[in-house]
Amino acid sequence: MIRAGIVGGTGYTGVELLRLLAGHSEVQVTAITSRGEAGLPVAQMFPSLRGYYDLQFCAPQDAMLERCDVVFFATPNGVAMHQAEALLAAGVKVIDLSADFRLRDAAVWEKWYGMEHAAPHLLDEAVYGLPELKRDAIRKARLVANPGCYPTAVQLGFAPLLRENVVDVRGLIADAASGTSGAGRKAQVHALLAEAGDSFSAYGVAGHRHLPEIRQELAQYCGEEVGLTFVPHLAPMVRGMHATLYARLTKEVDLQALFEAHYADEACVDVMPAGSHPQTRTVRAVNLCRLAVFRPQGGDTVVVLSVIDNLVKGAAGQAVQNMNLMFGLKESTGLDAVAVCP
Amino acid sequence: MIRAGIVGGTGYTGVELLRLLAGHSEVQVTAITSRGEAGLPVAQMFPSLRGYYDLQFCAPQDAMLERCDVVFFATPNGVAMHQAEALLAAGVKVIDLSADFRLRDAAVWEKWYGMEHAAPHLLDEAVYGLPELKRDAIRKARLVANPGCYPTAVQLGFAPLLRENVVDVRGLIADAASGTSGAGRKAQVHALLAEAGDSFSAYGVAGHRHLPEIRQELAQYCGEEVGLTFVPHLAPMVRGMHATLYARLTKEVDLQALFEAHYADEACVDVMPAGSHPQTRTVRAVNLCRLAVFRPQGGDTVVVLSVIDNLVKGAAGQAVQNMNLMFGLKESTGLDAVAVCP
Amino acid sequence: MIRAGIVGGTGYTGVELLRLLAGHSEVQVTAITSRGEAGLPVAQMFPSLRGYYDLQFCAPQDAMLERCDVVFFATPNGVAMHQAEALLAAGVKVIDLSADFRLRDAAVWEKWYGMEHAAPHLLDEAVYGLPELKRDAIRKARLVANPGCYPTAVQLGFAPLLRENVVDVRGLIADAASGTSGAGRKAQVHALLAEAGDSFSAYGVAGHRHLPEIRQELAQYCGEEVGLTFVPHLAPMVRGMHATLYARLTKEVDLQALFEAHYADEACVDVMPAGSHPQTRTVRAVNLCRLAVFRPQGGDTVVVLSVIDNLVKGAAGQAVQNMNLMFGLKESTGLDAVAVCP
Amino acid sequence: MIRAGIVGGTGYTGVELLRLLAGHSEVQVTAITSRGEAGLPVAQMFPSLRGYYDLQFCAPQDAMLERCDVVFFATPNGVAMHQAEALLAAGVKVIDLSADFRLRDAAVWEKWYGMEHAAPHLLDEAVYGLPELKRDAIRKARLVANPGCYPTAVQLGFAPLLRENVVDVRGLIADAASGTSGAGRKAQVHALLAEAGDSFSAYGVAGHRHLPEIRQELAQYCGEEVGLTFVPHLAPMVRGMHATLYARLTKEVDLQALFEAHYADEACVDVMPAGSHPQTRTVRAVNLCRLAVFRPQGGDTVVVLSVIDNLVKGAAGQAVQNMNLMFGLKESTGLDAVAVCP
Repeated sequence: MIRAGIVGGTGYTGVELLRLLAGHSEVQVTAITSRGEAGLPVAQMFPSLRGYYDLQFCAPQDAMLERCDVVFFATPNGVAMHQAEALLAAGVKVIDLSADFRLRDAAVWEKWYGMEHAAPHLLDEAVYGLPELKRDAIRKARLVANPGCYPTAVQLGFAPLLRENVVDVRGLIADAASGTSGAGRKAQVHALLAEAGDSFSAYGVAGHRHLPEIRQELAQYCGEEVGLTFVPHLAPMVRGMHATLYARLTKEVDLQALFEAHYADEACVDVMPAGSHPQTRTVRAVNLCRLAVFRPQGGDTVVVLSVIDNLVKGAAGQAVQNMNLMFGLKESTGLDAVAVCP
Repeated sequence: MIRAGIVGGTGYTGVELLRLLAGHSEVQVTAITSRGEAGLPVAQMFPSLRGYYDLQFCAPQDAMLERCDVVFFATPNGVAMHQAEALLAAGVKVIDLSADFRLRDAAVWEKWYGMEHAAPHLLDEAVYGLPELKRDAIRKARLVANPGCYPTAVQLGFAPLLRENVVDVRGLIADAASGTSGAGRKAQVHALLAEAGDSFSAYGVAGHRHLPEIRQELAQYCGEEVGLTFVPHLAPMVRGMHATLYARLTKEVDLQALFEAHYADEACVDVMPAGSHPQTRTVRAVNLCRLAVFRPQGGDTVVVLSVIDNLVKGAAGQAVQNMNLMFGLKESTGLDAVAVCP
Repeated sequence: MIRAGIVGGTGYTGVELLRLLAGHSEVQVTAITSRGEAGLPVAQMFPSLRGYYDLQFCAPQDAMLERCDVVFFATPNGVAMHQAEALLAAGVKVIDLSADFRLRDAAVWEKWYGMEHAAPHLLDEAVYGLPELKRDAIRKARLVANPGCYPTAVQLGFAPLLRENVVDVRGLIADAASGTSGAGRKAQVHALLAEAGDSFSAYGVAGHRHLPEIRQELAQYCGEEVGLTFVPHLAPMVRGMHATLYARLTKEVDLQALFEAHYADEACVDVMPAGSHPQTRTVRAVNLCRLAVFRPQGGDTVVVLSVIDNLVKGAAGQAVQNMNLMFGLKESTGLDAVAVCP
Repeated sequence: MIRAGIVGGTGYTGVELLRLLAGHSEVQVTAITSRGEAGLPVAQMFPSLRGYYDLQFCAPQDAMLERCDVVFFATPNGVAMHQAEALLAAGVKVIDLSADFRLRDAAVWEKWYGMEHAAPHLLDEAVYGLPELKRDAIRKARLVANPGCYPTAVQLGFAPLLRENVVDVRGLIADAASGTSGAGRKAQVHALLAEAGDSFSAYGVAGHRHLPEIRQELAQYCGEEVGLTFVPHLAPMVRGMHATLYARLTKEVDLQALFEAHYADEACVDVMPAGSHPQTRTVRAVNLCRLAVFRPQGGDTVVVLSVIDNLVKGAAGQAVQNMNLMFGLKESTGLDAVAVCP
């Protein structure tokens, strides 16, 4: 059994990791830390876990994380970068669900995240954990930077177009909507049901932290800088993320065939039949990205629809997928549930 | 492998059966019927099932259901009563998720359901499928009447009080709220998001079809007719059912201990710690009833809170639990997932 | 024009007062205070008010509230009791939307609200502001304690039964559900959309602060102590409150006629036709309580359904109704909008 | 008083017209027709209207609509085109909330709406009723084609850019989301709360009926055909529409100043301060479009955010605004309520 530790288990990505790992045949969670909740049984904070975990939250210093085989960081940005090195030195593999190791350029990271990076020397080693696009590197990695939710949905949708070089990469548009669990399990007014319920709005139009991450990765697919406008929105739902992507075609191509070929062997990406409009609920609680591609009115604009569960393929599920790769397991181990729909 | 057929698979209980059975190690779904959708791949109607089922809906006459080991009826009321006998005669076990075999008195059934009962001679044989209360009979049953969602939530909450004879059974009150999936996957105005969203109301106060079912069963726990007022409500959510039960205590008793003892060995009932307020989301997508019991201000009124997922413990999950019993499997086979929360 | 001040205008009752007073022909809001937001234009915090108010929040000490004709307290509990006396002394009428003056017994108040009462000598003078039941006293009042939302919905539903002495007052049950705006515009985890969305639960079953308030008032209708069990629930919606009330009938009576007669002259209470199930959305944004009364199966239990908008008839609208009475205006001035439905 | 008739009053635009006209000082609704509900009191179908209307639905032939001063068609597409001529001949002004008179080219209309146009000779006379852009023509019109909801939100957002000729009109993108009331008060599965709740998806990507309408109108602003990709989405909320618009800038311009100048005198358009992200709830129930404009990272892509209430500025409210213009009233008469927020 793989011994797994979770740092910062009181948020949504933490509890989602616990949910997924409870059904994983090869993993045992041996420690879960929380500075504020040390001593509290995990199942008392999250009654949905009653009967699955006897663990209590423990203080970070008492967690003996160096005895784990893998440690997941489900922490706010700025925590993992302080602790990763010691764990790696102890032979522990690290999967960071926060943003600490996602950007390769420490200066860019510091600009967007507003703090000094504590471990810039690890940025080169860290592997960006989008398995469909970096599978081989992830298999060999000690340190994986688990992608953000928007970047996952956007990259999986754009990748076939950019890799096949069929669109103008200077004018890409990613218009995306997220459920409010994406804002985290933090006390904040704007995410109250009475504020976000029965309403819809954009946010972060001037610049969202996921923008440089998406740009960095997309550039690798096409070998040049991309021009990307990214507009996230908050939708009045708990889970789910929907990205609508726009690009200008520069070549005649059978888009449906291109997408189907690109993801033919992928267990966690589903290219839907032509004409489909994927709903976020069809991926609720599962580690799956569903895609559909359109060319409206036969014009030169291609529209890609991409849906994920922001907490699963956009966070905890992808982390488990990465862990499976890092430990030589079948990639979808523990990730084969059916979406909860309706 | 148990060969299972599903009659009427286009509604919510049908798709939920398919979701649960996809993860059941001992069952293969071999046929699913729909008069209106014959020929349509199941996964085309329900994209959440893509990759799990190659089946198409077939016309009832083509389904060869008599070759199945078990047939689930996920049909409107009035269908199963016409088809059960032939299947039983062919040696097929039948689990009816509709109301056809829930009431023991055909005359009462006909009054509440407004049609003649087609198989009153089967009512004596049919076993009411609430495993926590009728486990032995279910194990031997050929024909199981799967309980309604409200009756499940209400009975599991009242049973300890009635069986232990600690309340006045003449003045029971069951106040319950359901998500709108309980209204079914039918085109109807009152269940539109624009009608039921962001609103709350009671319905069926003068008399709901689940009332005689609850009364019939509760009477068996206490050995006398009960006086029950049952008020269902529609809540603006997809899944989930919450029952708040009120009764007048007639004996001094440690309510928490009584409930814990009563359900100590039950895998699908969770008595929460004293003071808990179970949320419906903590049972989302799982076959579980969570209960809490209160005696406000130390008065003589006991309040029981009971939550289930109306589509799982209130329908498809309970049907699988019954099937497990009928086929000698471990009762929770295929039903051990963690609730999807948030 | 009546000059109105609002203390504590950054919460939901504050902004709702501003919404309602913007359409009131006889009132001008001249000051609105917020300790934390002094200097901020009101319309910047609440864009829905853009174009209606040029006011800025000001510090309490700068508000010159003593120049107002009326001051509304839309503050947390424990604020109004410190400031009311000085305002009354300056000839200002005070309407307190918090709980400070709702209970007549300071000791009971201190027990439930966990602090010392700063102005117990004002409790006798304070008039409980439920216009349908205390209209004459409100007309003459200097200090009005605006009722809580649950107490409003529950009292208006029980009042006809208790006043006419047709039920057993020892076993009353009030089962109620509220939208999450009732939890206020405060940063708190349990009211996040990702926590409260698509879920339903009870809370405060052991004892909610509105319980003593309801008991105190109901006792006045029937002239004796009542036995009341009150269970509030949180429903996944923004606004709206639904109370389902249960009592045992002790007399034969035409319930529909009794309710219609009782509220025949009331502009803000609507007794719906027999058999109706009022939805909370039919009172969205308006100062109205809709009621329906049932006697299920002709038994001895009466069921009353009562719906209000928790922010209007349950808070700000009722405060305006009280103000209208206190200043000799037509009671429904500024309160005649149609409900926003759907 | 203006005598107004409403044809087809049982849908959401019908009941919203009734809500708005109840508060309009210069209008009396004298007839409301419904083929299916003749004889039913309007307030019985819509309890939110209790106390405001004594009217019953009447059969079209009994409505004596020719005695009205104005008739609103709140009907499905294909009805108004059969009845408009007779009403116009009788001197009645007609405001059609359906699509019958929105396209100037009958052939295009017939292609998108799938039926023969019954009154193509009226298309030239019909005035497209977007007051901010066609005010003078509306004032003189006998027949107004009230715009669709998406076209309203999209045009008001694009108009300043196109009229000032500062963007490339060949690559416009309109990405929009609507609450489900936009699907109408019709029994249909996809709009059930259990289908559309807690989920998000695009629809009609290959071609939505509002596309030709938007294209036709935008072309008038810039004097040439525009290239527009329009992707509508369904959001899990009752009301509200949000459009996110993208265009490539071709000139240096102060976008904030341009928008503010363009709409400086408009009562029903609110250009928000730079950096704002309008929420749909800030226009809930009011006849207002709020706009914000961005130039992310100083690049050449302009992003406009545009929100309306789809039933008000996107339908019934705009119809009243048009009526006010046609009858020489102040444009905002009856439309000055504050948004219901939260």
